[in-house]
Amino acid sequence: YVLALDGETVIGSMAIRMRRPFSLDEKIPNLDAHLPANRNFCEVRLLNIAREHRSGRVLPGMLSVLTDYAIGEKIDGALISATTRQLQLYSHLGFVPFGPLVGTADAPFQPMYLTLEVFRERLRKMSSFPPAARGEVVSLLSGPVAVHDDVRAAFHSPPRSHRSPSFEDEVRDLKARLRALANANHVEILLGSGTLANDAVAAQLALLGGRGIVVSNGEFGERLADHAQRARLDFEHLRFEWGEPIDVARIGNAAWVWLTACETSAGILNDVAAIGALCRENGAKLALDCVSAVGAVPIDLQDVWLATGASGKGLASYPGLSLVFHHDPIGSSDHVPRYLDLGLYARNGVPFTHSSNLVQALNVAVGRVDWSKRFSDICTNGTWLRARLRAAGCSLVGERATPAPHVLTVQVPSHVRSDDVANVLERTGYIICHASGYLRERNWIQICLMGEVARESLPPLVRAIARACR
Amino acid sequence: YVLALDGETVIGSMAIRMRRPFSLDEKIPNLDAHLPANRNFCEVRLLNIAREHRSGRVLPGMLSVLTDYAIGEKIDGALISATTRQLQLYSHLGFVPFGPLVGTADAPFQPMYLTLEVFRERLRKMSSFPPAARGEVVSLLSGPVAVHDDVRAAFHSPPRSHRSPSFEDEVRDLKARLRALANANHVEILLGSGTLANDAVAAQLALLGGRGIVVSNGEFGERLADHAQRARLDFEHLRFEWGEPIDVARIGNAAWVWLTACETSAGILNDVAAIGALCRENGAKLALDCVSAVGAVPIDLQDVWLATGASGKGLASYPGLSLVFHHDPIGSSDHVPRYLDLGLYARNGVPFTHSSNLVQALNVAVGRVDWSKRFSDICTNGTWLRARLRAAGCSLVGERATPAPHVLTVQVPSHVRSDDVANVLERTGYIICHASGYLRERNWIQICLMGEVARESLPPLVRAIARACR
Repeated sequence: YVLALDGETVIGSMAIRMRRPFSLDEKIPNLDAHLPANRNFCEVRLLNIAREHRSGRVLPGMLSVLTDYAIGEKIDGALISATTRQLQLYSHLGFVPFGPLVGTADAPFQPMYLTLEVFRERLRKMSSFPPAARGEVVSLLSGPVAVHDDVRAAFHSPPRSHRSPSFEDEVRDLKARLRALANANHVEILLGSGTLANDAVAAQLALLGGRGIVVSNGEFGERLADHAQRARLDFEHLRFEWGEPIDVARIGNAAWVWLTACETSAGILNDVAAIGALCRENGAKLALDCVSAVGAVPIDLQDVWLATGASGKGLASYPGLSLVFHHDPIGSSDHVPRYLDLGLYARNGVPFTHSSNLVQALNVAVGRVDWSKRFSDICTNGTWLRARLRAAGCSLVGERATPAPHVLTVQVPSHVRSDDVANVLERTGYIICHASGYLRERNWIQICLMGEVARESLPPLVRAIARACR
Repeated sequence: YVLALDGETVIGSMAIRMRRPFSLDEKIPNLDAHLPANRNFCEVRLLNIAREHRSGRVLPGMLSVLTDYAIGEKIDGALISATTRQLQLYSHLGFVPFGPLVGTADAPFQPMYLTLEVFRERLRKMSSFPPAARGEVVSLLSGPVAVHDDVRAAFHSPPRSHRSPSFEDEVRDLKARLRALANANHVEILLGSGTLANDAVAAQLALLGGRGIVVSNGEFGERLADHAQRARLDFEHLRFEWGEPIDVARIGNAAWVWLTACETSAGILNDVAAIGALCRENGAKLALDCVSAVGAVPIDLQDVWLATGASGKGLASYPGLSLVFHHDPIGSSDHVPRYLDLGLYARNGVPFTHSSNLVQALNVAVGRVDWSKRFSDICTNGTWLRARLRAAGCSLVGERATPAPHVLTVQVPSHVRSDDVANVLERTGYIICHASGYLRERNWIQICLMGEVARESLPPLVRAIARACR
């Protein structure tokens, strides 16, 4: 049985029979002769929808629930006996009439069948349906993100040596694009994750010396403090509650200040402009973790000493490359591990074995996008999604700070497990962040709009989250 | 004109005319009506080969030189007037007869044409030709190497999150295969190059403490000393001449010993077994750079404390992953940069963003190969190639040490530039190592048999190198 509810009122119901004999077997001799061969049909009976909801999405919705269930049971078609007054509606959904009318002269019914493929094809055009009903998956991870076909194609070329002139040209080209995107003077491209890039920044801070400040208001800020501690930096750790805005007035005089531009864990943006102004005033060097900011929100690194980024998040390429932007030229140092020595990268661009596949993909990913438009789309979608989730009763983390348009962290109510919410969403066709330790500990889930996410996929997401958190 | 020489004796010659009118234009009215349309033909005349060389590879060889030249001139076909006694030979090469006989009754000639595609197709079956004549390229780099189609296919799947259970399964699977391959207790898979893995080893040596010994007899051993110095290890640098065998008796008592298993720069294998025995005797920890050894020669890490490897060399996958094998469990340490902290990898396998594409490709690359057979093939090919190069008068580096079967370093004579040799070889279809600073400085070139290299491609390589170094 499938029931449709409006609040606590039943507005639709239907019964599904998975096994023969069906009621139609009694009414139509040799039923199979009318049907496409080699299918496992189920029969839908007692379909009833409250009159005022008949033209809405209740019927397709119930059928979509049926679809999810049927797929699990290896069913790939449905039979109904449709009231002749609604033939048009059923045809619109993809039902095909067959055989003679059944029922009575007063209440005639048309036997109809629907195949799974046709139904999915119809649903594809009905954007109010969750992706799984259309056989699709929408990735709302902070990485890997959905990549464009052009990026995929670029990734697939044969690998080239990191010493080949054509690869060096490509790296130069990519660097120019990245510099333009971030208004940065220099950038180095490392083979590794954002953690590697932040280690490289820690090594530079160690060379700089002086007492600094690591500011944190979430998991990723705390990780910077861990980088700093491991690099044996002399620093104050200025901690704010996770998701609370940074009180800029509490940042004192220091040789350097290090923080996240976007604190992904709480889905907030830190006030980099104000902190940058303070650093200029104090003559402090500013270092920013922009791993989840680059490519998702506009960043201007003109007054930033060092900043990190990654390939597989906002830049919408494959994971595996990380970036260190720098304001000033960097020399090599004998006191830094080779792989972390930005001076070696700055000197010749490609000091170690690289992945030409990842570089080529990132180059296409950065080159193909109109970034102003991308930023504006992400902002519009994120603002819309945040408002709708709030309206649906969801509790968002970091509401007192500046929201990150592309990262929404939701506090799942304590009577529901965040993992369960994620599983429900995954069955609905949405892959979200939930598996990181810091999310699980707090019963948080995270929705990221970093890759190519279509606006139409968001409304069913809101409904699915609200339902799963209920 | 193309001349074929045996020593200083001309054994073959031919003249090529690139532009109309051809001699056949005079003999056959409306010549074009007999020929495939839309082609740029050249005409080969005065073809003459010493009688005793007529059945050998002189003719195809001269035609292959012609091919290289013709392609540059956008020629895609050749015309000849063939002596009727040799019609079978020409047909075998792909020539097609057309039009009437020309010449005299005593010396009749059959006009024939040959298209570039057909000629290449024929050459494909004649393995004694260099790859370029067949439109192919053979990579003899130390990386990236030629990868198998299955590996390419595996690389092309959509990226997965480093926190997804299916990715964790794949990593577990890959680790089991790598452990089995190297007879190692543990292995960690890092996203980065071999340099990263060696940095991670340096960090562990720093945690171990005590005074150690870095042994070097080439570029990569010297790099280990640089790693050690940057990690501020307390160590003696025991240097041997590049390519000279390590005198094991000179390795004294130490807390640890670090060296390369294969010293790629000189194309030699170090006596790891003897040094391992010495370390056991002295209670010293042995660390090995196996970056260019894993997958190319058998290695047994059962008594080795730490060893490094990489994905894009002997394992014949894409570059981008590096490996650290370890004998004992490793704990995390607050004093090591996050990305270099093997304890974090050992604890959960995938601590940071990873590349599921690279992991999947490597898993297939390691899983698909019969490693005993691969090692034996490489050894056979390498031994053969070394002997043939020596016989052809080439001077090989490291001849007093144990040769690495898969890396041959050639000392180019001082009157020739190594870059020029590499360029000649590249035109012949062989891509070799020459661009690294340490090779250029010494006028060395390097031939590596790490990926999928067919035996048939080696004899023409020997001839090409010998010719280019003359």
